[in-house]
Amino acid sequence: MIQAGLQRTQPVSFNQVRLEDAYWTAYTKLVRETVIPYQWDALNDRIEGAEPSHAIRNFRIAAGHEEGSFYGFVFQDSDLAKWLEAVGYSLNVHPNPELEAIADGAIDLVIEAQQPDGYLNTYFQIKAPEERWTNLFDCHELYCAGHMIEAAVAYYDGTGKRKLLDAMCRFADYIDSVFGTEPGKLRGYDGHQEIELALVKLYKTTGEERYLKLAAYFINERGQEPNFLIAEWEKRGRTSHWQAGVTRKPDPAYNQAHVPVREQEVAVGHSVRAVYMYTAMADLAALTGDESLLAACKKLWDNMVNKQMYITGGIGSTHHGEAFSFDYDLPNDTVYAETCASIGLIFFAHRMLQIEADSTYSDVLERALYNNVVGSMQQDGKHFFYVNPLEVWPEASRKNPGRHHVKAVRQPWFGCSCCPPNVARILSSLGEYIYGVNDNTVYTHLYIGSTAQVKLGSGAAVELKQETNYPWHGDITLTLSLAEAANFALALRIPSWSEGKAEIRVNGETLAADAYTIDKGYAYITRAWVDGDKVELTLALDVQLIEANPLVRANSGKAALQRGPLVYCLEETDNGDKLAGISIPADATFTARFDDSLLGGAIVLEGEGYRDDQSTWSGELYRPVKRQSGRIPVKAVPYSLWGNRGEGEMAVWLRVRE
Amino acid sequence: MIQAGLQRTQPVSFNQVRLEDAYWTAYTKLVRETVIPYQWDALNDRIEGAEPSHAIRNFRIAAGHEEGSFYGFVFQDSDLAKWLEAVGYSLNVHPNPELEAIADGAIDLVIEAQQPDGYLNTYFQIKAPEERWTNLFDCHELYCAGHMIEAAVAYYDGTGKRKLLDAMCRFADYIDSVFGTEPGKLRGYDGHQEIELALVKLYKTTGEERYLKLAAYFINERGQEPNFLIAEWEKRGRTSHWQAGVTRKPDPAYNQAHVPVREQEVAVGHSVRAVYMYTAMADLAALTGDESLLAACKKLWDNMVNKQMYITGGIGSTHHGEAFSFDYDLPNDTVYAETCASIGLIFFAHRMLQIEADSTYSDVLERALYNNVVGSMQQDGKHFFYVNPLEVWPEASRKNPGRHHVKAVRQPWFGCSCCPPNVARILSSLGEYIYGVNDNTVYTHLYIGSTAQVKLGSGAAVELKQETNYPWHGDITLTLSLAEAANFALALRIPSWSEGKAEIRVNGETLAADAYTIDKGYAYITRAWVDGDKVELTLALDVQLIEANPLVRANSGKAALQRGPLVYCLEETDNGDKLAGISIPADATFTARFDDSLLGGAIVLEGEGYRDDQSTWSGELYRPVKRQSGRIPVKAVPYSLWGNRGEGEMAVWLRVRE
Repeated sequence: MIQAGLQRTQPVSFNQVRLEDAYWTAYTKLVRETVIPYQWDALNDRIEGAEPSHAIRNFRIAAGHEEGSFYGFVFQDSDLAKWLEAVGYSLNVHPNPELEAIADGAIDLVIEAQQPDGYLNTYFQIKAPEERWTNLFDCHELYCAGHMIEAAVAYYDGTGKRKLLDAMCRFADYIDSVFGTEPGKLRGYDGHQEIELALVKLYKTTGEERYLKLAAYFINERGQEPNFLIAEWEKRGRTSHWQAGVTRKPDPAYNQAHVPVREQEVAVGHSVRAVYMYTAMADLAALTGDESLLAACKKLWDNMVNKQMYITGGIGSTHHGEAFSFDYDLPNDTVYAETCASIGLIFFAHRMLQIEADSTYSDVLERALYNNVVGSMQQDGKHFFYVNPLEVWPEASRKNPGRHHVKAVRQPWFGCSCCPPNVARILSSLGEYIYGVNDNTVYTHLYIGSTAQVKLGSGAAVELKQETNYPWHGDITLTLSLAEAANFALALRIPSWSEGKAEIRVNGETLAADAYTIDKGYAYITRAWVDGDKVELTLALDVQLIEANPLVRANSGKAALQRGPLVYCLEETDNGDKLAGISIPADATFTARFDDSLLGGAIVLEGEGYRDDQSTWSGELYRPVKRQSGRIPVKAVPYSLWGNRGEGEMAVWLRVRE
Repeated sequence: MIQAGLQRTQPVSFNQVRLEDAYWTAYTKLVRETVIPYQWDALNDRIEGAEPSHAIRNFRIAAGHEEGSFYGFVFQDSDLAKWLEAVGYSLNVHPNPELEAIADGAIDLVIEAQQPDGYLNTYFQIKAPEERWTNLFDCHELYCAGHMIEAAVAYYDGTGKRKLLDAMCRFADYIDSVFGTEPGKLRGYDGHQEIELALVKLYKTTGEERYLKLAAYFINERGQEPNFLIAEWEKRGRTSHWQAGVTRKPDPAYNQAHVPVREQEVAVGHSVRAVYMYTAMADLAALTGDESLLAACKKLWDNMVNKQMYITGGIGSTHHGEAFSFDYDLPNDTVYAETCASIGLIFFAHRMLQIEADSTYSDVLERALYNNVVGSMQQDGKHFFYVNPLEVWPEASRKNPGRHHVKAVRQPWFGCSCCPPNVARILSSLGEYIYGVNDNTVYTHLYIGSTAQVKLGSGAAVELKQETNYPWHGDITLTLSLAEAANFALALRIPSWSEGKAEIRVNGETLAADAYTIDKGYAYITRAWVDGDKVELTLALDVQLIEANPLVRANSGKAALQRGPLVYCLEETDNGDKLAGISIPADATFTARFDDSLLGGAIVLEGEGYRDDQSTWSGELYRPVKRQSGRIPVKAVPYSLWGNRGEGEMAVWLRVRE
């Protein structure tokens, strides 16, 4: 069904991977048992103190079940879609009849709201039926469609139920009849990319090539001249959904529609829109063999991760437009680093990995996952960060308007609640990101305890049991179960943070350097594997002091603590306030210690630093330097855990004393 | 005429002070010869490439001389007023018939535009006559009145011509008939303070006590409950001049009207509004003996200068509302530090100094004047900073929207052009800030070459000739001319930056420590002075490395270079880019050298520092620390001169290497 393209490997589907992991089980259980039910309550406006979602009510009103007005953002429908997608993944690996009955009911509601022609969007149906497709720039119609298509695919995969899938095929067919280059069709595309990657998924599930072509149409059309988004704005009378009156000419760079996608070399504009688009571009390159699309993907990847990415895997330096700003502009305090953007970065990395097994992709995927994404969720599963700062001064977040967007504590739910359901859907399908496979290679991208059923392209079937206490410890054991011996390569990612300090043993024997090959960050062990073979990988989990490229002004003279994939931070609760007044020696030695009292247990880093002495100051604001500081113990905790112990200052980048 | 109050000293009027100063003459000449004519062109929309002002045209339309609509900000009239005020000062000391004729013509125009009842405001007259006094919160009616009153006083003082003064008395009389606590009067006040200090000036010039009482009314009424600004907003239908539709309830803290002024202890809200109000409060305390007002002034002063002031004398940490944020929040990059706010701070300091000769006031006055205010003006007199940053990365100013308000180069003129005419008016009356006098003491607050005619309260007259090469050199010579010997004290400010390292000689003899008394930063030399007495003061002008209180997170680990009253900065043109990558040793020794090629000649500071090595980096964004840096020469220039040699990075606070 898949065309000959550039795709080299397939991910091992998460429904072939059973997670058994000390670190992740807590999170995936939290998503299953708390986040998904909590979000259902949120969609139904049952969370006290949180802003109402109204998402379900919008569908009920559109379906004619009740009277009322649309409420919420124009893209409110997508919250239900992302929840359904997460439920689809969850049911896939954890059947739950009660949850499935609730989801079936929600799907019935969605389909009841759908128009006879296939169209579905409660905002336009309730509020402005005559304005359908008149403001793609602002109104997220295709974006919402895309999310519901993703939900339909996930729910079909998870339950085998076609109801939503069929409904979304009708919607996609209708969209295909509206958009395109043919005469009489609307030659447009959405202001917020999403439909493109969703149509690829729909194509993969249904085999219907029209969906793939429609996705390619949207990608190819984007940024062509005359610019559709500008022309549409002109045609609409220069109005905006978001502002009253006549508005200023929009900048299509915000929507990555400033030039055709193949000409884009720098990540610009709204960061979530960007990575969703790059994901679809990689999908299309993989499936259609489009080298020019792949070349653009590589340039954009390179720009994003080597010039515009926070050490936590966050992207988007400014809250103005939730956007990229420019190369090496990575302020820690006024940062955006939206959770959804990091999730989109993971999607993009995952697609690129299927084209090329290069650990640049899996290293970044891991960085974003273990830091920005996990850190966005409170340990109660009910509070989330939208913005993921690298430096927090709670008083500034409250009292300096330029930092109001940076919250010092996670919020219960958002009026614009894109992030929490996005976390739910990625963690519900986490198994998908661990392995890749092709004819004769099994790739291990992530080190997560699990048992995977892998079928090689050659036909050989192998069960891979991965045991590890990662990310706390660097020992990973892979046990292979095979019905019969098979010749293939096992390709283990050697994370770049290990600086190559990795030891591999097969059945207890350390492999000599010439017993395997290293290529693009993967160690390929090729042999005739037999049942019971045991591969052990030991990665050096040193505490590292990381510095940023001097072009990043914000981090000059600073360093961050990192151990394995985890970035660490200092919190006020452990180190007192005025974290900016703490410095650490350039040759600091920090000791890793497992603290089982810390939020379910975690490795903390402990060392010595210096603290600027406040005691010699009285009321003055400035004085000739005395620079007195005293030695103090410094304790760092994983960034992903920050903000779980009350409000306080936090800092990732620490001053280095030379 | 002045009531018995708290005023202890009077400033020596600038028309009694002839400036003869190497440093300042260039600036005052620039204001006289370039800024004032240029601003007249700007008011008349004759500056190519600058946003049109339309200020004169608004008056012409209001006067019936031409047809047309009002254009510009609602407070556009104040630009002409501030220009007339500056002209008044300028004519006072530098008669110029041609300029006076132009100003007379402008005054005629103003009076032609004035309504028969005394009212004057071209916005309301042209655009919304029925809305007079319905939106004091937003619309600056009394603010504009205040500026025209200040202009009238200055022009009368400068030329002896009463025309504008009489017109503004009619306006003030009319305002007095509208506002007050009496039944039938509007019990309100302006959203932007200014009328209060202007009415005090009008009272001082005319002796009419009603003006003083009206000023006191506005100050006393402010912040009382029920809150006038909120009630007015309610009455207006919750609308705003600035936004369409129904608006959110305004926060009167923005206007310092959240509590009565005597209960205010922390500087909050829009910083220019704040300091204009504090100035009037100090005026009223001085004139009426109101100790509770003085106590509030002292608390607000203390909060502002010891917790919320940049080292350059800038105030206002955020561009959101051009406002104070909170104690110790002094970001260098997203700073506001508006020029007008520093000028208002100088006004406030100047008033406080008349109540109490304490160098806390004159030190801050000097700091704001020599750094933030002088630095706001380009050496061509035609370009100005509104925002005065302490750190500039031009690319970030262009590409990170959170820093768009920080300009890397001065702008020709602003749509909201409050700052340039404010600079003009303070520099035109600079002489006023140098000396203070009372019965038996002559105070020297600033060290500026000049000849002053001083009349002591006792009746003794003395001519003080001050010769100095300040701020470049620390030697000041004061030569006294007296008709007959007189017994009085000469009180010389010993700036706090000198750390007491001052030597005083009288007629060549060094004074022993017991030959004078030091009180609150002033050295009092009391004796029977005779004609020809020569007092020499030598202040140690060491290069100082200044650190900020550790509560200022933004400056942790950093220091600023200062020499005398001047704060220094590094510029890209001298030190290359990536200034954040430069560090200086904590015991750095910088050498002061007069560079006569630098912008008319200036002391530059030269020393050694370190620069983070970029050469060991290739494309990566993060890596384990290597921290290689090499020694480099570092050159610092006065902050007031930055940005005069093309666009580039600038930094005041430098990393200290310990």
